[in-house]
Amino acid sequence: MSERLIAVYEVAGPAAEAEKTARAIAYEETVEVPLDFPLKASIRENVVGRVAAVAPTHEGRWRVEVDFPAALAGGRLGAFLNLVYGNASLWTDVRLVDVRFPASFLGSFSGPNFGLRGLRELLGVQGRPLLATALKPMGSTNEEFAAAAAAFARGGGDIVKDDQNIVDTSLESFRSRVDAIAKALSRENKSCLYFPHLSAPQEELEERLKFILDRGLRGVLICPAIVGLDTLRRLAASHRAVFMAHPAYSGAFYAQRSQGIEHSLYLGTLMRLAGADISVFPNAGGRFSFTRDECLSITAKARAPFGHLAAMWPAPGGGMGLGDAETMAADFGTDAIWLVGGRLLMHAGGPEAGARAFREKVLACASGA
Amino acid sequence: MSERLIAVYEVAGPAAEAEKTARAIAYEETVEVPLDFPLKASIRENVVGRVAAVAPTHEGRWRVEVDFPAALAGGRLGAFLNLVYGNASLWTDVRLVDVRFPASFLGSFSGPNFGLRGLRELLGVQGRPLLATALKPMGSTNEEFAAAAAAFARGGGDIVKDDQNIVDTSLESFRSRVDAIAKALSRENKSCLYFPHLSAPQEELEERLKFILDRGLRGVLICPAIVGLDTLRRLAASHRAVFMAHPAYSGAFYAQRSQGIEHSLYLGTLMRLAGADISVFPNAGGRFSFTRDECLSITAKARAPFGHLAAMWPAPGGGMGLGDAETMAADFGTDAIWLVGGRLLMHAGGPEAGARAFREKVLACASGA
Repeated sequence: MSERLIAVYEVAGPAAEAEKTARAIAYEETVEVPLDFPLKASIRENVVGRVAAVAPTHEGRWRVEVDFPAALAGGRLGAFLNLVYGNASLWTDVRLVDVRFPASFLGSFSGPNFGLRGLRELLGVQGRPLLATALKPMGSTNEEFAAAAAAFARGGGDIVKDDQNIVDTSLESFRSRVDAIAKALSRENKSCLYFPHLSAPQEELEERLKFILDRGLRGVLICPAIVGLDTLRRLAASHRAVFMAHPAYSGAFYAQRSQGIEHSLYLGTLMRLAGADISVFPNAGGRFSFTRDECLSITAKARAPFGHLAAMWPAPGGGMGLGDAETMAADFGTDAIWLVGGRLLMHAGGPEAGARAFREKVLACASGA
Repeated sequence: MSERLIAVYEVAGPAAEAEKTARAIAYEETVEVPLDFPLKASIRENVVGRVAAVAPTHEGRWRVEVDFPAALAGGRLGAFLNLVYGNASLWTDVRLVDVRFPASFLGSFSGPNFGLRGLRELLGVQGRPLLATALKPMGSTNEEFAAAAAAFARGGGDIVKDDQNIVDTSLESFRSRVDAIAKALSRENKSCLYFPHLSAPQEELEERLKFILDRGLRGVLICPAIVGLDTLRRLAASHRAVFMAHPAYSGAFYAQRSQGIEHSLYLGTLMRLAGADISVFPNAGGRFSFTRDECLSITAKARAPFGHLAAMWPAPGGGMGLGDAETMAADFGTDAIWLVGGRLLMHAGGPEAGARAFREKVLACASGA
């Protein structure tokens, strides 16, 4: 029998209604004809999805599994998204919550270039979370950004990234900004990485990425929902860089719990499949509305066995302060990146003291500490 | 004063709460720092968005306008999406409902290649809606698809497109399928266009598009949410083809009315900005849940003056039958594409008779009829 790809959805009940929705998905995502269409037996047997399970959830919804021939996705990201959530995305009450991939499908993807282990080797840091910050606010001068990055490095930070709002609408301004920050960091002679935001019209992405890598930098911040998930996949498959994925513009996929794509599937599985080494998401308790369970599920998907694909770093952030350190440590353990922006930069002693204060917290979370 | 770009959101009330949310958006989408961050005056004045209006809607929500310096979007699609709905997409209760662009921003976009007028000229059809169908079900042989396309042309159809589920996971199978259908259509010698589905890993899109155009075909079906909106823009700006945009995988953006992006903005404005000549959407009363007002609003955005950009065709579809013709005519007028799939192919007399029956309805909707 051909290999199967199982898509799991949460839909409205009662059972008969849920089963009907599951059958509608199985049709809509493959043959897309009315149920009374005279399908050939070969199509009905080999193309149409099959309803594999219907069961109630604890929240009063129904979890249904639809089993598709994996060949329909052909090991391709676009074809896969179309298959499991193309027209189904148009229904107001169907949420894609999980996918079980056959090994052959995953075999077509190269996944994260560095992942958990590779990034640790790059930084020479073992057994503790990594400390990251964002350069902001946009509108600062290159010198101000460079000074903040250098101070963060002196304070012991591991990764400084551009704020995702910083987009440099000209190639020239992008180059001079990145150059100024990279120079300042290199003068500090610390093992602190700088990830510029890779944002540009598609025609220019390659040139910007090449500039970044030629400059000796090792990775980028990227917004996959904006540049396109398949753009991330293409760039990651063709350039040995660290890709830090930011969730900008992707919230509509998961923000409403009765529709869209489950947080863990979108920010965990899909980002990793597309080649993200790091997935940034707003931590529970910050200024966005992710629950602790959602954050833990993303983290689980980032690290779980996933074919031959390297594990990905979860990077919770979004309004975290020093007082959240113990919770971060307990929730995410050592294999996580703490992304601290505003509160670190605003530290009474400046960004260097801010980095030092957060670094102490990160060290306290070291293995065995 | 610098040019401004106005983003309009619907948010939860009461007034004070709505204003607070608007201010949070203005900060989050630009400087992204806590409200007590010591911003320089130049940044506060020239970078941070401004709350321009707060007013109640009839539905008990609040409509707020945030006014951004247009330079922050820099005439670039990605930077624009990031600016108006980057982190704001992560809030569960903020819906982006409209945008007012300055002329300078629109000037950076080439928009639809053909649009309303160009496609009419290509087909030599004036004063009536166009009739389109989809080749389905997937799993049919090339000969079956070719025969259906030819029958549709004989019946007087204007445009036959691939079903968006048809993705041809190998370039070889894509070529032979497209070739078989194009040959069959060309034997009929009718002015019926064929739009193959342009779906592939990003590395291969260009090659497939080139094959299509070299083959003498004039356009493609494309799923912008899957390939990326900026991918559509790039392809449309660099190839003189008709781009028919399909909403697959985009539903999460608008399906839940209290979050995401308004139907008309996403399927009307954004598609047109990215260069779609035609925007497909599910008509009210079909098997999806768009309201009549939402369909009319998409249509209005498709045709309204929009800088120098050509008008775009609205293409309502999704489960329409012969009995819906009068409503379609009344709702969408002559400048629309009726997309009829399953019900046309299932017509008792076969697809040729199906096309003929729907064509009569389309002719009855001619100007002055």
